[in-house]
Amino acid sequence: MWTMIEIDTRKPVDVIDITARVQEALQEGKTESGICLVYTLHTTAGLAVNEADSALIKDISNLLDRVAPQGAGYHHDRSDGNAHAHLRATLLGNSVVIPVEQNKLILGTWQRILFFEFDGPRQRRIFVKAVPGV
Amino acid sequence: MWTMIEIDTRKPVDVIDITARVQEALQEGKTESGICLVYTLHTTAGLAVNEADSALIKDISNLLDRVAPQGAGYHHDRSDGNAHAHLRATLLGNSVVIPVEQNKLILGTWQRILFFEFDGPRQRRIFVKAVPGV
Amino acid sequence: MWTMIEIDTRKPVDVIDITARVQEALQEGKTESGICLVYTLHTTAGLAVNEADSALIKDISNLLDRVAPQGAGYHHDRSDGNAHAHLRATLLGNSVVIPVEQNKLILGTWQRILFFEFDGPRQRRIFVKAVPGV
Repeated sequence: MWTMIEIDTRKPVDVIDITARVQEALQEGKTESGICLVYTLHTTAGLAVNEADSALIKDISNLLDRVAPQGAGYHHDRSDGNAHAHLRATLLGNSVVIPVEQNKLILGTWQRILFFEFDGPRQRRIFVKAVPGV
Repeated sequence: MWTMIEIDTRKPVDVIDITARVQEALQEGKTESGICLVYTLHTTAGLAVNEADSALIKDISNLLDRVAPQGAGYHHDRSDGNAHAHLRATLLGNSVVIPVEQNKLILGTWQRILFFEFDGPRQRRIFVKAVPGV
Repeated sequence: MWTMIEIDTRKPVDVIDITARVQEALQEGKTESGICLVYTLHTTAGLAVNEADSALIKDISNLLDRVAPQGAGYHHDRSDGNAHAHLRATLLGNSVVIPVEQNKLILGTWQRILFFEFDGPRQRRIFVKAVPGV
């Protein structure tokens, strides 16, 4: 049992709160208690668990922009113009793992699952897979 | 079966070795062999697996301080003064996953589970959940 | 059921595509469907899922070199000369989790499992553990 979430990003850098989509995917499954892997199938997008505040999301994007600016003479840019997007995705990671109890994601008060597009706009796929605990 | 670890951090930035607490939580469970998710429920704290050397921990804290300094004109700081803590938590990640065999965490010689407080002092909660393998 | 992958790195900084080795480890097991934890037992090496393009790998290494340069007056360097390697490993993370269906790793078109050596050359061990879903 797994679910593929598809999202269309709208900008070169775009951050989308997918918490409700992941919770929905979980409800279709039968994992009462366990953990849930949320995994993007792309190398220029990332995932994180943090607050879905638009001001904070700007700050996170700005930080990644500062650490891995676009077009900074990257080797990979000779074949493809998106090295900065790969670098940001690598720093962030391509998956998050969330505990599940009673078929619900265990999230703290401010925690949301955030999808980070770094080379958009594109159609993106996120694989959701739950495994049961004891 | 899951366990909540509660810790009181003592400083704005504080790093605590929680390996023994996670191992203890595991012993209460029944996962002979599998993997263990260690997951903080907060957005201004992080987790990592690395060496619990106090000199190294200072180096890691200094690095994050340099990459995401406090009060650097962040948008999120207009509503809340802790954007730097969110940024550092996002870079580090809010969970680690550890293999388990014979009810024991599989850790290399120097590996310890480190909890990073970035907006303390606070009371913090860490969710521990094991899932069985075959 | 778990597998230990052993690799010999050849340089101080070395990046090795271990996707085929992980897939091989998986085939020995019996996890038709689930998730697979790939976990390095070291504190000066990391893992990431991204593209195995040699130009990009140079860009990632350069980025980490810039963010955590060798010998930048670290406290840990007084006892051991490899603080930069611990810092890079901490930023990258020491594990990745990959979905598995029909005994095969679920990877996007460009995704590969990359092992990052930051303090080589050394013999390194990577623990692979699959857990079943439903």
